[in-house]
Amino acid sequence: MDNAKHKPQSASANAKLAELKRRLLEISDLRAAGALLSWDQATYLPKRGAAARARQGAIVSRLAHEKSIATELGNLLEELEPYATSLPYESKEASLVRVARRDFEKAIKVPSDYVARVSAFGAAAYDAWKRARPANDLATMVPFLEKAIDLGREYADFFAPYEHVADPLIDDADEGMTTASIRTLFAELRSELVPIVQAICSQPPADDICLRGSFGEAEQLEFGLSVVKRIGYDFDRGRLDKTLHPFCTRLSAGDVRITTRVNESDIREALFSNLHEAGHALYEQGVNPALDGTPIGRGTSVGVHESQSRLWENVVGRGRSFWQYFYPFLQRAYPDQLSKVPFDAFYRAINRVERSLIRTDADEVTYDLHIMLRFELELELLEGRLRAKDLSDAWCAGMQNYLGIAPADDRDGCLQDVHWYTGSMGGAFQSYTIGNILSAQFYVAALKAHPEIPSEMAVGEFNTLHAWLREHLYQHGRKFKPHELVQRTTGGPMSTKPYIAYLRAKYGELYQLPSVEMRGRSAEEHI
Amino acid sequence: MDNAKHKPQSASANAKLAELKRRLLEISDLRAAGALLSWDQATYLPKRGAAARARQGAIVSRLAHEKSIATELGNLLEELEPYATSLPYESKEASLVRVARRDFEKAIKVPSDYVARVSAFGAAAYDAWKRARPANDLATMVPFLEKAIDLGREYADFFAPYEHVADPLIDDADEGMTTASIRTLFAELRSELVPIVQAICSQPPADDICLRGSFGEAEQLEFGLSVVKRIGYDFDRGRLDKTLHPFCTRLSAGDVRITTRVNESDIREALFSNLHEAGHALYEQGVNPALDGTPIGRGTSVGVHESQSRLWENVVGRGRSFWQYFYPFLQRAYPDQLSKVPFDAFYRAINRVERSLIRTDADEVTYDLHIMLRFELELELLEGRLRAKDLSDAWCAGMQNYLGIAPADDRDGCLQDVHWYTGSMGGAFQSYTIGNILSAQFYVAALKAHPEIPSEMAVGEFNTLHAWLREHLYQHGRKFKPHELVQRTTGGPMSTKPYIAYLRAKYGELYQLPSVEMRGRSAEEHI
Repeated sequence: MDNAKHKPQSASANAKLAELKRRLLEISDLRAAGALLSWDQATYLPKRGAAARARQGAIVSRLAHEKSIATELGNLLEELEPYATSLPYESKEASLVRVARRDFEKAIKVPSDYVARVSAFGAAAYDAWKRARPANDLATMVPFLEKAIDLGREYADFFAPYEHVADPLIDDADEGMTTASIRTLFAELRSELVPIVQAICSQPPADDICLRGSFGEAEQLEFGLSVVKRIGYDFDRGRLDKTLHPFCTRLSAGDVRITTRVNESDIREALFSNLHEAGHALYEQGVNPALDGTPIGRGTSVGVHESQSRLWENVVGRGRSFWQYFYPFLQRAYPDQLSKVPFDAFYRAINRVERSLIRTDADEVTYDLHIMLRFELELELLEGRLRAKDLSDAWCAGMQNYLGIAPADDRDGCLQDVHWYTGSMGGAFQSYTIGNILSAQFYVAALKAHPEIPSEMAVGEFNTLHAWLREHLYQHGRKFKPHELVQRTTGGPMSTKPYIAYLRAKYGELYQLPSVEMRGRSAEEHI
Repeated sequence: MDNAKHKPQSASANAKLAELKRRLLEISDLRAAGALLSWDQATYLPKRGAAARARQGAIVSRLAHEKSIATELGNLLEELEPYATSLPYESKEASLVRVARRDFEKAIKVPSDYVARVSAFGAAAYDAWKRARPANDLATMVPFLEKAIDLGREYADFFAPYEHVADPLIDDADEGMTTASIRTLFAELRSELVPIVQAICSQPPADDICLRGSFGEAEQLEFGLSVVKRIGYDFDRGRLDKTLHPFCTRLSAGDVRITTRVNESDIREALFSNLHEAGHALYEQGVNPALDGTPIGRGTSVGVHESQSRLWENVVGRGRSFWQYFYPFLQRAYPDQLSKVPFDAFYRAINRVERSLIRTDADEVTYDLHIMLRFELELELLEGRLRAKDLSDAWCAGMQNYLGIAPADDRDGCLQDVHWYTGSMGGAFQSYTIGNILSAQFYVAALKAHPEIPSEMAVGEFNTLHAWLREHLYQHGRKFKPHELVQRTTGGPMSTKPYIAYLRAKYGELYQLPSVEMRGRSAEEHI
């Protein structure tokens, strides 16, 4: 053993790197076991299995956390530092050591006991919310929310001092961003969005009756499957199951699952949720498999992840080209409902803009206003300026302020999203808007390299776009921080301009808005 | 802390007991996480997720094993021994300490590294077998079998000295039994079975054409679901999914799952497999929930478990009374195929006896001969008298000897069962025959207490039998060793007599065998 010291540095470093990878793989595999426990809870768990499931998840995540803060791991990372910095920044090894060390420095600040408490709490709260939301039973959820706020503050305090209590939580989701930087970004976006929403909502809304009615579940599932397959989701490395609140989960490079929810009286729900989750899944399936089982073997941040779900859901999936190809298939699946609906009417319907109550059903123009409301409220909850029991009133007031409407009950109000109740408090929602902003910015960069993308999509070919995203974004996993990736891929920092330009062009055409130039061409080609 | 020594013993013992339960619950929860990884692998895992799944299962079972051999656990068990022996033998606490200690003494003999290797091997081998069996590719599986034999011997050696290398493996499945005792049992049974098989097979076999044809999967699944529900399987605490090789798995008291395989050209496969797995599940769902998460919170042995699967599959599920109730429903599900088939023809068909190739399809008269062959071969493999590469020939010779027929290929020969290849070598099969023997013995005891059971079943009432089994067997979990449970429940030791009497009566009636008395009455009432 002592001989190792006298060996050339590379041999010693190689042995240490192997040991590092072994340890990181164990952590990754335990986290995957935890992810399966969660996936199963959200898809197939029998009603009375929930209590034990909460415990099972807690012990697995506690053990993963214990391993992620092992002294030996810290020592290895420190010893490997000189070796890693001697390598090119982008190399797999340098990136692995750099990111693993950053994770380690964060993880050692969080006690294992805390991690187990959060996991057990999250499972119990999810189970309670599943019953409470349909029953419009906020009272049951208030103690969970209070607990979630406490857990959020407790977490932030592990990283004290901070400028704002939400900063450590935001940094976990979107590394490099802060409460202050998001406030600036949101203020800028809001000032642009509000006039667009006003201009659109002063006109009669698009008729969406063709999307409502009776759409059989089996056909919806089959169509959804064919769509996600066509855009490039690989079913040899994934699957699609039903759940209450759709999500995507990575269990390994060969197992990235998506879930869906079918609403037989509104075809939009499953349709766009499938594209959203498939966007997440394309990202995870596109990470270089050589990075699997390491901390750099997954998407780099929640915001960049959302940029891919929103790119495929909205920029692509609510676009003209996409439906030029898919609409005939959808008409064939539902001839009674759609055979007489012209393409333009369908296209307008899926892009109907209105002030509405439910975030996940919101159109892409008003969506960010839902997010801004949530961001504002969660900051107030964390700061202690708003109490859990007063959330319902604050929610209604906020909806009036941001969207000009308010829900009749909590089911369609502050109970609609599970995030806060299960402990994702602070940093839970802003990533969706960051994702919207980046979705347009990345798409513009792809178009610049491949102007043929829209015409290809119109004939059902998605590979040019998919391959560009895989090459420039997906394959890198977490090698780069979000702002590094944006800079590399788009040639500049994150900017709201492409997103605003995209919305102006697309909705300018749809609603003949006066301030918009270059009308009449496809929005996808504009931006 | 030192004060604890001066506290009354019960207070100190209570604290220790609480700590013991906490530790055992962690182990149980980790094992449940491992069980979910396996369940998912056998039901929903995407093709390319298998490699990572093997690793995930390995790390989880290694950690469970590490916790099950912790020195602190051993110390607690030792310290609690005087307390436990001061309590009644049957009390929850005394049983818990007694069984946990027995498990601990076994577990410390097995290195954690071995457990991880077996788990990883099992997952990889299962994956290989899934492809190899349909391809009739024994060559691929020979190295797995060799490895499994090595792993079996390695395991036995942890418990050396032993009389026979299979003894430690058998004791794990059926505590208290040995190679020698099973050989005696099997010899006795064989001498009774062979003349019965000969007498039956000298007659023309029952016509089973009505069971073959085209039976839609959806209807089979629905019928299976309604049957297992009716006999008492609780879907709030379980679920039914499709798999390649049906099994039952317990994830907690509130989550006991069964799986099924549908063959559209033979209705028997799903039908009786469902009843078989539901029998296992009724046992697990019937264990006193207060024992959940402890080593006594599940069925007591593999053999006793099989007694319940075989009782519900055969004694009940292939019985006259059962079908008096269910046959009209099955006819309604498949009117084209069954409406013109009289009850007696159907009853004869589902009890057709023949010398056949596949164990899981075998009738209850020849079934045990399949088991005896496997038991003999696995002893030879473990002893080194038979080599893996010679298994195919030995299998064919053995089939000729036991059943008078031989398979045309390995798919229907030595590749048909997954057990050996995944490392269940030695002690893998004898439990099925122990189960058959006990199924009749337990049923006779239930009938003695409640002679009304057959007439109740004929009108779809299964609760008297289910409740009797729950009270006398299921609720106790692992409190009692198999032979203790048999003695308590039936008033005597394990015996082949009720089983032989059951077969003679039932098949005596069906085939008008000369040696059988009391013809013409229902077999279920005879025994």
